[in-house]
Amino acid sequence: MDRKTVGIFIFDDVEVLDFAGPYEVFSRTRTVPGADSRRSDESAPFRVFTVARSRETVTAIGGLRVIPDFAWADAPPIDLLVIPGGFGTRPLLSDRATLDWLPQAASRASLVTSVCTGALLLAKTGLLRNRRATTHWAALDLLASIDSTVQVDRDARVVHDRVFTSAGVSAGIDMAFAVVEALCGKEIADETAHYIDYPRISRT
Amino acid sequence: MDRKTVGIFIFDDVEVLDFAGPYEVFSRTRTVPGADSRRSDESAPFRVFTVARSRETVTAIGGLRVIPDFAWADAPPIDLLVIPGGFGTRPLLSDRATLDWLPQAASRASLVTSVCTGALLLAKTGLLRNRRATTHWAALDLLASIDSTVQVDRDARVVHDRVFTSAGVSAGIDMAFAVVEALCGKEIADETAHYIDYPRISRT
Repeated sequence: MDRKTVGIFIFDDVEVLDFAGPYEVFSRTRTVPGADSRRSDESAPFRVFTVARSRETVTAIGGLRVIPDFAWADAPPIDLLVIPGGFGTRPLLSDRATLDWLPQAASRASLVTSVCTGALLLAKTGLLRNRRATTHWAALDLLASIDSTVQVDRDARVVHDRVFTSAGVSAGIDMAFAVVEALCGKEIADETAHYIDYPRISRT
Repeated sequence: MDRKTVGIFIFDDVEVLDFAGPYEVFSRTRTVPGADSRRSDESAPFRVFTVARSRETVTAIGGLRVIPDFAWADAPPIDLLVIPGGFGTRPLLSDRATLDWLPQAASRASLVTSVCTGALLLAKTGLLRNRRATTHWAALDLLASIDSTVQVDRDARVVHDRVFTSAGVSAGIDMAFAVVEALCGKEIADETAHYIDYPRISRT
C-alpha cells in the first residue's frame, strides 16, 4: 500500500491532546475493519511521525516528554502536515526559524491542517489568507488580528477551506476524522472512530 | 494547594489516546475558570506524571516515543493510578514484575482507574473481583474470562464501582472527567471540558 505520510509538528508547550488526538486517529486508521487489522500496519493508509526543530526531547504542556521522530532537516517528505496548538505557539509566532520552515513544509504537503491555536501559526505565515478558519474559542480574536483577511468561523468544530482547521484541543480528533473521510471515505473514518470508541462530533 | 498526584502507567505498545486523554484532562483541570488560569499550575488540583518499569524510553502504538517521568522504584506516592490499555497489555498479563507492582501501587492509591484494555491488568491482579467493570468492546469476553466474578458492563462508557473503568480508547477522556467530577465537583469538570472544547459523552 502506498501510504501517505502524516507529519505532526511538536514543540515545547504543545498541548498534549492537540497532537495526540490526530496521532491516534491517523495511526489507527485501517482500510480493513475490525480489531485484528490494528495488530499490523498492513492495511494502514497513513504513516505517522512527529517532527520538530531538532531531535531533542520536546516537553509538552503538563510536562510530558516526547522524543521527535525527525528534525525538520532530516524528515521524510510530508504529505499531510498537522500543526497542533498550545501556549507554545505564542513564542513561535515571532520565531524566524519556525516561520521559515512552516510555509516551506506546507507548500510541499498535499494537505495542511491545524488543531486549536496551531491556526495562529498558519495565519502568521499567510496560509489562511482569504480563507475560512477556526481556532480555540479563547484565541478567535487573536486569529483575526494576525490576518484580517481570515474569515474566522466562531461556531464550527472543523473548517475545511483547502486547509483544515479545528476548534480547541479535542476538536483535533474530529479534524483528523474529517481528513480521513475526505481521503479514504466515510466508511473507513466511521469504522476507525468505532475502533477507538469515539462518537464523532460535528458542530457547524 | 494540596495537589493529588496522578500516576499514569506507560509501557511499550500502550495506545496513545489511552494515556494522553487522561493526561490532558487531569493536567489541564483548574479550580479557577478561564484560559488564563491554564498558564500556571497555581489552581491545578492534580500533579500528573508518567510512570514505567524503568526510565527507559517507552514506544507507544504507532511509534510515539515517550520518556517516563519516573520508574516504579523512584516514583512519588500515587494518589490516582491510571492504567491505560493497548496491545501492550497482553504480554503484561503474564509479566511477573508488572503483576507484582500493580496491586502494590493500587493498594497505596486512593483511587484506581483504567482505560480500555487496562482493565485486563486490573482483573488479572484481582482488583476487579466481584465488581462491575468495562473495557474495549473487542475485549469484553477476554475480561470476563480473566476473572469470572467481574460483572462486565457491555454498554457503559464509564463504570464506577470503587474502581473507575472505561470503554475503548477515547472513553478514557470521559473516565477522567468522571473522576474530576467525583473529586472536584461537576462545575470544575464541565469548565475543564469546555476549556478543551470537549462535549462530555455519557453512555449507560
